[in-house]
Amino acid sequence: MSLVVMKFGGSSVANAEKVKHVAGRIIAKKKEGYKVVVVVSAPGDMTDDLIEMAAGVTKNPPPREMDVLLATGEQASIAILAMALQAKGQAAISLTGPQAGIYADVDHTRARITEILPKKILAELAKRRIVVVAGFQGLNPNLDIATLGRGGSDLTAIALAAALKADLCEIYTDVEGIYTTDPRVVTDARKLDEISYDEMLELAGAGAQVMQGRSVEVAKKYDVVFVVRSTFSTAPGTRVHREVRHMENVVVSGIALDRKQAKISIVDIPDRPGVAAKVFGALGKAGINVDMIIQSEAIDRKNDISFTVSDGDLKKAMKALRPVKVALEAKDLVANSNVGKVAVVGVGMRSHSGVASKMFQSLADAKINIQMISTSEIKISCVISRDHIDDAVKVLHKAFELDKK
Amino acid sequence: MSLVVMKFGGSSVANAEKVKHVAGRIIAKKKEGYKVVVVVSAPGDMTDDLIEMAAGVTKNPPPREMDVLLATGEQASIAILAMALQAKGQAAISLTGPQAGIYADVDHTRARITEILPKKILAELAKRRIVVVAGFQGLNPNLDIATLGRGGSDLTAIALAAALKADLCEIYTDVEGIYTTDPRVVTDARKLDEISYDEMLELAGAGAQVMQGRSVEVAKKYDVVFVVRSTFSTAPGTRVHREVRHMENVVVSGIALDRKQAKISIVDIPDRPGVAAKVFGALGKAGINVDMIIQSEAIDRKNDISFTVSDGDLKKAMKALRPVKVALEAKDLVANSNVGKVAVVGVGMRSHSGVASKMFQSLADAKINIQMISTSEIKISCVISRDHIDDAVKVLHKAFELDKK
Repeated sequence: MSLVVMKFGGSSVANAEKVKHVAGRIIAKKKEGYKVVVVVSAPGDMTDDLIEMAAGVTKNPPPREMDVLLATGEQASIAILAMALQAKGQAAISLTGPQAGIYADVDHTRARITEILPKKILAELAKRRIVVVAGFQGLNPNLDIATLGRGGSDLTAIALAAALKADLCEIYTDVEGIYTTDPRVVTDARKLDEISYDEMLELAGAGAQVMQGRSVEVAKKYDVVFVVRSTFSTAPGTRVHREVRHMENVVVSGIALDRKQAKISIVDIPDRPGVAAKVFGALGKAGINVDMIIQSEAIDRKNDISFTVSDGDLKKAMKALRPVKVALEAKDLVANSNVGKVAVVGVGMRSHSGVASKMFQSLADAKINIQMISTSEIKISCVISRDHIDDAVKVLHKAFELDKK
Repeated sequence: MSLVVMKFGGSSVANAEKVKHVAGRIIAKKKEGYKVVVVVSAPGDMTDDLIEMAAGVTKNPPPREMDVLLATGEQASIAILAMALQAKGQAAISLTGPQAGIYADVDHTRARITEILPKKILAELAKRRIVVVAGFQGLNPNLDIATLGRGGSDLTAIALAAALKADLCEIYTDVEGIYTTDPRVVTDARKLDEISYDEMLELAGAGAQVMQGRSVEVAKKYDVVFVVRSTFSTAPGTRVHREVRHMENVVVSGIALDRKQAKISIVDIPDRPGVAAKVFGALGKAGINVDMIIQSEAIDRKNDISFTVSDGDLKKAMKALRPVKVALEAKDLVANSNVGKVAVVGVGMRSHSGVASKMFQSLADAKINIQMISTSEIKISCVISRDHIDDAVKVLHKAFELDKK
């Protein structure tokens, strides 16, 4: 008998009607002949409400207690969903993360899963029950509840699929799958039938936020094939799996975009060892993730370093860098928050030349100036003015014929 | 070092301001030199909200899942309260019922505590932390969460005080203690400094709903002295303990009342063995608690049986009794929902004669007709017309000089 792990996000269980609908979909899957394990997130805005509750009593909620609080959201969801399944005549049981045998490390509010011992899940499946597991949580070595941080429920689903050697893992969300680009920008953006882990990672990192990168990484590591699909439609969704050569026979699979970037440049700093370490050490200490980094060629033993950070981190980054600028005797420290990023993503481009030149030429034809360029094996990213993002995405989507299958 | 168990109900932690206030009171107690264990209920209306959530998906929530759902209320409370304590600089840790070593039986939604193994609590107290324990919940033999039913948080506090051999147990609520009668009826009702378990049980059973009877029974069984006092005042409250002879040197300690009674009479039934068993067997099967029972003397081998039930159970009771009436060939089955009960309660009356006659005379002087009478060692109850309840309580409160110390 095949085993499926189905994951439903918070918007899918936001109210009683939606919970009943989800219960119906789960039972339909069971009737197809699967053993079913369901992973569910906290209902709707509950996690935000709980965070607000904590904010009412303290500015710095202690992480252990925050986890005790946040874990109640998913616990409420599993109980309600198990009730809805039973109300439809389907045997079902809810399990919290600890009850399901999900073990995590001690890093509260962003713990990693260390091990899954699914004895209880297997015993309940053997009783022909649907097992509803709380996402986002596990038991740590102190026997405390630990939550897994952003995207934790997806991670729970992928990790359970791996531990249970599931035949299928379905991530239900409010979109129908992974698109060639943001459908809000390009109306003829096309849903992809399949995509590789690496492409999905690049699309996610560049702003296509269907899933957090860490879940995709775990799926890749354990070779868990999963399908991203909609809770509210029967469309087949996008299958995410290991790279298949000439998959769909396309070169480029999608255009990613990120409006919320900011560019920082440090101008005229001495070209000596340790400079980059000082700059990015200071940013790392301040907890700021740096994205693209470009260091211009040294002229007269002087360098420029430019890089992008998330727009929300800009102020913090500038604060951290001001003393560095002084220490390095740099001429200037310049911030530009009116930038964004477009990226062409595709496993196919590894074996095809001409993708980069086509990208640059298309942008040039549209009179869009490129401020920074960064490339990886399966992605070419350009930083451009934020005002040109929509135009750039449209131009590139057309140039690479992504509207056509 | 002395140990105190402090219990706060849902209204005491209904919002952030109240939680902060409660945290302040707990810290003040710790500064008096106590080791402190706190038991807390779900915040405000959260339990009702959760029940409503379940009602949205099913008419008959499965009890196991109901417990998974309801337990989240107290879990949210312990986290928030531990946060508030830490925000005030006080080391504190939250423990769910299972983490605290509270074990229960498998009777979901109304489990009994079977055992408390407070190893973790003691370890945390040794680290000079305040330990905040979720009321109303424990771990059952299936390793499932079980809730303890109505009054469960009081029960948790009393049981923990017994298991920890606490020097003091304080039940914080929204009234200042136990009163000689309902202050809404008699304005000069007086707060009692102390009361015995038995008197408190009689007062509770007769409608003075400060605490559920089962918690008082457990306190009595394990000789746990506790104080009922207000969260929002520093008044000393009422001390509840084993009977002390001539406690306060009074005969009567309070007047209890219950407006929500209904009287049922079965008229003219044959006087033969097994009749009462049939009547009360049918009611027991329907889950109806019967309070006072009076069987009149047999005349011509025919009996009348009258008894009271809670007004809310009247319809169900009549439905259960109609076939019994037919089977017993009784002449009539009569219901009267316009009745209530007043009771005079006091350990002192055991050794004093004249309490009953004074009660009946006082009611007669006020032209209040007595429909039924029932007595126990420390209580005399009368069923009267519901319209006369307030007058009766006032008359009796004055007659027994309860306004005077």
